[in-house]
Amino acid sequence: MLDKNYEYIDNILHIGGVSTLKLVEEYGTPLYVYDQKLIKDTASCFIENFKSDTLRTEVIYASKALSNLYILGLLAKKGTFVDAVSMGEIFLALKAGFKPEKIHFHGNNKTKEELAYAIDNNIGLIIIDNYDEFKLIEDLLLNSDKKIDCLLRINPDVKTSTHKYIQTSNADSKFGINIRDEKLKDIIKEMTNSKVIKLLGFHAHIGSQVNELGFFKEEADILLRFTKEMEEALAYKFKAINFGGGFGVRQNTSDPSYDLGAFLKEFIGYIEKSIKDYDLSIETVGIEPGRSMVNQAGTTLYRVGSIKHTLEGLPLVFVDGGMSDNIRPSLYGAKYDALLANRAKGEAYETYRVAGKLCESGDILIDEARLNNPQKGDILAIENTGAYSLAMSSSYNKQLKPAVVFVEDGKASLAVKREALEDLIVNDLEYIED
Amino acid sequence: MLDKNYEYIDNILHIGGVSTLKLVEEYGTPLYVYDQKLIKDTASCFIENFKSDTLRTEVIYASKALSNLYILGLLAKKGTFVDAVSMGEIFLALKAGFKPEKIHFHGNNKTKEELAYAIDNNIGLIIIDNYDEFKLIEDLLLNSDKKIDCLLRINPDVKTSTHKYIQTSNADSKFGINIRDEKLKDIIKEMTNSKVIKLLGFHAHIGSQVNELGFFKEEADILLRFTKEMEEALAYKFKAINFGGGFGVRQNTSDPSYDLGAFLKEFIGYIEKSIKDYDLSIETVGIEPGRSMVNQAGTTLYRVGSIKHTLEGLPLVFVDGGMSDNIRPSLYGAKYDALLANRAKGEAYETYRVAGKLCESGDILIDEARLNNPQKGDILAIENTGAYSLAMSSSYNKQLKPAVVFVEDGKASLAVKREALEDLIVNDLEYIED
Repeated sequence: MLDKNYEYIDNILHIGGVSTLKLVEEYGTPLYVYDQKLIKDTASCFIENFKSDTLRTEVIYASKALSNLYILGLLAKKGTFVDAVSMGEIFLALKAGFKPEKIHFHGNNKTKEELAYAIDNNIGLIIIDNYDEFKLIEDLLLNSDKKIDCLLRINPDVKTSTHKYIQTSNADSKFGINIRDEKLKDIIKEMTNSKVIKLLGFHAHIGSQVNELGFFKEEADILLRFTKEMEEALAYKFKAINFGGGFGVRQNTSDPSYDLGAFLKEFIGYIEKSIKDYDLSIETVGIEPGRSMVNQAGTTLYRVGSIKHTLEGLPLVFVDGGMSDNIRPSLYGAKYDALLANRAKGEAYETYRVAGKLCESGDILIDEARLNNPQKGDILAIENTGAYSLAMSSSYNKQLKPAVVFVEDGKASLAVKREALEDLIVNDLEYIED
Repeated sequence: MLDKNYEYIDNILHIGGVSTLKLVEEYGTPLYVYDQKLIKDTASCFIENFKSDTLRTEVIYASKALSNLYILGLLAKKGTFVDAVSMGEIFLALKAGFKPEKIHFHGNNKTKEELAYAIDNNIGLIIIDNYDEFKLIEDLLLNSDKKIDCLLRINPDVKTSTHKYIQTSNADSKFGINIRDEKLKDIIKEMTNSKVIKLLGFHAHIGSQVNELGFFKEEADILLRFTKEMEEALAYKFKAINFGGGFGVRQNTSDPSYDLGAFLKEFIGYIEKSIKDYDLSIETVGIEPGRSMVNQAGTTLYRVGSIKHTLEGLPLVFVDGGMSDNIRPSLYGAKYDALLANRAKGEAYETYRVAGKLCESGDILIDEARLNNPQKGDILAIENTGAYSLAMSSSYNKQLKPAVVFVEDGKASLAVKREALEDLIVNDLEYIED
């Protein structure tokens, strides 16, 4: 059900029934290609498996993984909620057709301007990060008749086994208030008494690329037990809870694979049972998949410029993009698989290093890639680039941002146009000598 | 002469005679502020010290460090050349007023489209990276009457002591052809016989943030000796040489400082003498400062959102930007100094961690900063952010790109307008359900 729609026809890679060679001919390279059916299937998998007879469930897409009008429009239609982390992300979600009540607003340092924007636009839920933010929201609502639904972000202090940069619940984390913090109970008490915010419950997020359900169960135990304690201490009924995201994806063939549907079913079952066991009044449970919604559906296509044999190290395959369109290999040491889109089969596999075209030694996309006799002019496809590639892309070296195309059932839809030279200077002013 | 134009008036940081508080009031935060006089002084320092009675010298600004119409216009007026590494950078240099003959085109994997653009625009010099590129240029010029000046990029195999990512002359580097490569002589021979390219000589670049003149002298020895060998082997006279960039800057107070002017004087003196000793016909010598031209002149101003005390680790100072406007701390572990622009003096210094507002644990701008009692609403200034901050900036989390302002003699000039929400979707298309 969640397989990629990759197919080889006449030795040429087709995605969603469209020839990758036709795609690059029409849209140029580099090119981000998204398997639209896989995204729809993934969204359905989340919605249908994270479902309960006793609870309202919310699948909230963490749009920082990939945010443009097209993907947001698609997910709005599929019925997800959306998690926005800035005024810009709220703006996009609204433009793409999300109803304000389905937008949740996150962030460790939301600015006053952003909070005012969220309130003015009747955003459904604000996940409050800290006490200062709570007071800032109260100030903003002081002379208004609005009452805003909120969750408070708790740091559950769960250590996960993922990369340092994508761990989120260490005791020195910048997110939320530590569950062991002595001031926490008083803060919650003040929030439950607020006239302008309605505290529905708590939120936590344990990290990224977490494949072990055990960590999520541990998170649920901690957060539900805490909710119970606060209910008893404050004589207050909490109505909602949110366990964040961080569901692992298979970045490359050496990563473990797991059955997302079964994982979600087991997780919601565990939550249902725990809520019942604790005798809580929680009615709504949310999760926030980002990477796991879009990563596997993305493929980046590059044109090979030349093959360089250096005196040491692997032969280099030069492609016409690099760290400007995917900074994850340089930033996180992310490892990807690649294949030649126009020479899918063959026996002449060797190991190469895939290097980008940016003027920087660290601009290496894949340290070791098994490729079938790459040649100048070939199209190289890097798999599983759907999340945090375009999202973190830059104009470094004044590289033009690639186009984004979604493919399904033999049809290609342009989602984002390739950047034009004039776009590079749209906000620039000229130097005028005195 | 190369001091920053920082000044404290009434306990408020002024840059170039302009109050930083006035700047943030007018242009918002985050804000990139450039000390215009320091850039002019630095450019003058390069031009006036890297000067020779016997050689033509070229100071070629490596625009990847910071490229917008304003800075390029300023440096064009100052008389530098410019090094462009993409079609986009060529486009900007031309728009900013550089004459085509003062633009040099670099890159390990220039595309056919880019090379055609460079040729059509009569770019002054192409630094050829490899044999395939040479052939591609020959093909492009086949039916033209143009002859293009070129240098060939050589990897001199000099190890420098800088960060892995910014080392450029290891034997497995993606740049240039290794000086020990057996095929090199035949390639050069073919190039010297070309009817459409004129090979002026060689280029090398040893790395970034190199503070020791010894490395540059070693590079000069290697490259000049090699030029001599090739002259003798091929009975050909080379007219130019380029030693690249990589001149160190003082990123923070723990970095060594050095006298750039003295460094350049000694370097050009050494080159003059070596060219004479080898009895070479070289007439033109180039260097390519990028970071060293603009880094110290840049300051980023942020507004402090709140101070968070976590259970472990340093107290966190939250600012309203982060890895979207400066990825160097996350990407390279770059260390910066900061100060409070509105509370410059004081006795209550403590150590803090400066965290950005992006939804990512790794979004830390400074691991340890000595700050004078930071408070919500303060303006935090991070120093020496002139190079590779804006240049590598992204729209991650849909953060709006900050404005850029240049200040001198009490006057502020807007160089780049702050990004607007509508800019985020300028190339986006909507999803239309079938």
